[in-house]
Amino acid sequence: MRSAMFSWRIIKNNSCPRFPHKAYSPICLEFRPPERGRAVPEAAMRHQNGPFPGCFYMANRAVSLMDSAGAGIKSVACCMPRRSLSVCLVQNSAMLTARLSEILASLPPLPHANSVQSLTPAPVVLVGAGPGDPDLLTIKALRALQSASLVLYDNLVSDAVLAFAPTTAQRIYVGKESSRHSLPQAEICTLMICLARAGHPVLRLKGGDGYIFGRGGEEAQALAEAGIPFTVIPGLTAAQGAGASVGIPLTHRDHARALVFVTGHLQDNRQVDLDWAMLARPNQTVVIYMGLGTLSIICAQLVAHGLPPTTPAALIERATLPDERCVTGTVADLPALCASASLKPPTLIIIGEVVSLRAVLTRTLPLP
Amino acid sequence: MRSAMFSWRIIKNNSCPRFPHKAYSPICLEFRPPERGRAVPEAAMRHQNGPFPGCFYMANRAVSLMDSAGAGIKSVACCMPRRSLSVCLVQNSAMLTARLSEILASLPPLPHANSVQSLTPAPVVLVGAGPGDPDLLTIKALRALQSASLVLYDNLVSDAVLAFAPTTAQRIYVGKESSRHSLPQAEICTLMICLARAGHPVLRLKGGDGYIFGRGGEEAQALAEAGIPFTVIPGLTAAQGAGASVGIPLTHRDHARALVFVTGHLQDNRQVDLDWAMLARPNQTVVIYMGLGTLSIICAQLVAHGLPPTTPAALIERATLPDERCVTGTVADLPALCASASLKPPTLIIIGEVVSLRAVLTRTLPLP
Repeated sequence: MRSAMFSWRIIKNNSCPRFPHKAYSPICLEFRPPERGRAVPEAAMRHQNGPFPGCFYMANRAVSLMDSAGAGIKSVACCMPRRSLSVCLVQNSAMLTARLSEILASLPPLPHANSVQSLTPAPVVLVGAGPGDPDLLTIKALRALQSASLVLYDNLVSDAVLAFAPTTAQRIYVGKESSRHSLPQAEICTLMICLARAGHPVLRLKGGDGYIFGRGGEEAQALAEAGIPFTVIPGLTAAQGAGASVGIPLTHRDHARALVFVTGHLQDNRQVDLDWAMLARPNQTVVIYMGLGTLSIICAQLVAHGLPPTTPAALIERATLPDERCVTGTVADLPALCASASLKPPTLIIIGEVVSLRAVLTRTLPLP
Repeated sequence: MRSAMFSWRIIKNNSCPRFPHKAYSPICLEFRPPERGRAVPEAAMRHQNGPFPGCFYMANRAVSLMDSAGAGIKSVACCMPRRSLSVCLVQNSAMLTARLSEILASLPPLPHANSVQSLTPAPVVLVGAGPGDPDLLTIKALRALQSASLVLYDNLVSDAVLAFAPTTAQRIYVGKESSRHSLPQAEICTLMICLARAGHPVLRLKGGDGYIFGRGGEEAQALAEAGIPFTVIPGLTAAQGAGASVGIPLTHRDHARALVFVTGHLQDNRQVDLDWAMLARPNQTVVIYMGLGTLSIICAQLVAHGLPPTTPAALIERATLPDERCVTGTVADLPALCASASLKPPTLIIIGEVVSLRAVLTRTLPLP
């Protein structure tokens, strides 16, 4: 099959190497620019950042060209107004027309299709899924999920939260792990925009609070710049769930007059690029997200910048979930404690005198 | 009327100078130690921190002696096991017996009274009420509220959130405003303990998140030390509600790698005691709670410590409520903007480059 400019073929219609994790299986197309003489084999598409001519992800009739190293176009995307024969590249200000009517005709219609042909985009709701316990979702988020038809969700969204969406809702896993992104951030934004432009109301479900290290700001910015109406529903961030669950108040008049949230993951330069002098100051609580892999560096740097090695510190793995674990110690011995407990992400780090309150606050049996 | 050690009389049974604000009107008793020859006039009780012999607050049959300057006992409290004739002073390790059967007999019985006489304390649930919008309550908090029989709530709890409690639930306003506390913190703790010991399950409802500048840590600590079982339900803190509502992501990879929460209220020494050098650092978002009254000092100090005067800043009054207002400017002109808009507490201050995103994020019409 050929478009006006590109040739393409259906690789799979029930699984896709870029979406291997969960139940949703978009149709996946190989996309080959005319300049290239050879089709890229399917295996090459498994390489996340490797070059491949292109891949369409299709959510019913919304078509998104997720990437293309072909024709000199990088990070492109297209949207497919219902039954339209044109594809608009929404990034790089490039335009491209392709005949996709054959593919579209082979797909089931939109479950909520209406007969009005309109280019008015559907709205996007950016929803914070909270720390994991489904009961810690907000009422507003619950209502949004219960009426969702298409959910784009992250790695840190718990299955129990996702279960609030109707069974008929499309669920698209777009991943996001501390060390790598299953789908690069720009592509997630593009996918949302494409889906919204194709008339699909999108519920974007992010672990924790999208506006606190959830990159929700970037997604909101992309939506606004693309003219997509959106709203944001905040969620409890992991630190709030963890603090309440394991008995660590994040502030306390006797111990912490400031509360600082940072992330501890490696930057592109393989450094943990944090303001150590600031984080080592007294009378504050420091919460570090995504810092498990760099815990030794974090603790060493804090002590090197003046934080007393005896400062209480805690690690909370899978906060608020049934298999939550909490390890407490000091900044000095936390890395060793972490290793012996074999903690895995997602694990939150809390550093400060407030951690010492846990011994008192867990003295009485918590309620079930 | 006389107890074994103290004489007392009912001052009011339908209003109380210490609870003037809201509908709940506990019975108020004057409490006079035998050493003193004169009763303290009712007017003296209006002085919040002034000496007065004592005041009982009665929630049905739970009796709490809120204060006493008499007999050398300070900050005492008593609890009243149902139909018991003894009163236990739970602070200062002192014991006191008093005959209160006459009063108790005159009160309506506990709505949920059971016939089992037990000294096992009832549980306390510390619930974060979120930023104000009732839809931003968590599912868990909603369930707790819907099954509450006795709610102790703060100034910052919105009426709409309180309305989730059954109409039959007792609602006790214990206040908490930025400049003064309607009931001193120690007395709130004492009241909770007394009520729980008297067999009343208490739902303690605090604006925002009790563990983020909500003094929930202190209350949890008091409960734990008194052996009262409790659980904590986190709530969205005002900054999260405000950020989502007005279009200010609290973090953003291009603008803020750290998020700092502090309070801006005056300390006992009439100073704003903040770590200005830390707050003036670049690449972070600073959220200041209760800082409206000291806004000029805050902005001046931040600039004096190196924060560029052009740094974007926002004030959000009554975040997430229907009459929410948001004013944006820079650290330099924020005090003037605040004055001209006549903003009143509760107003949150957000300082940092992320504030500049608001212009972009509010470009598309938000969803209703």
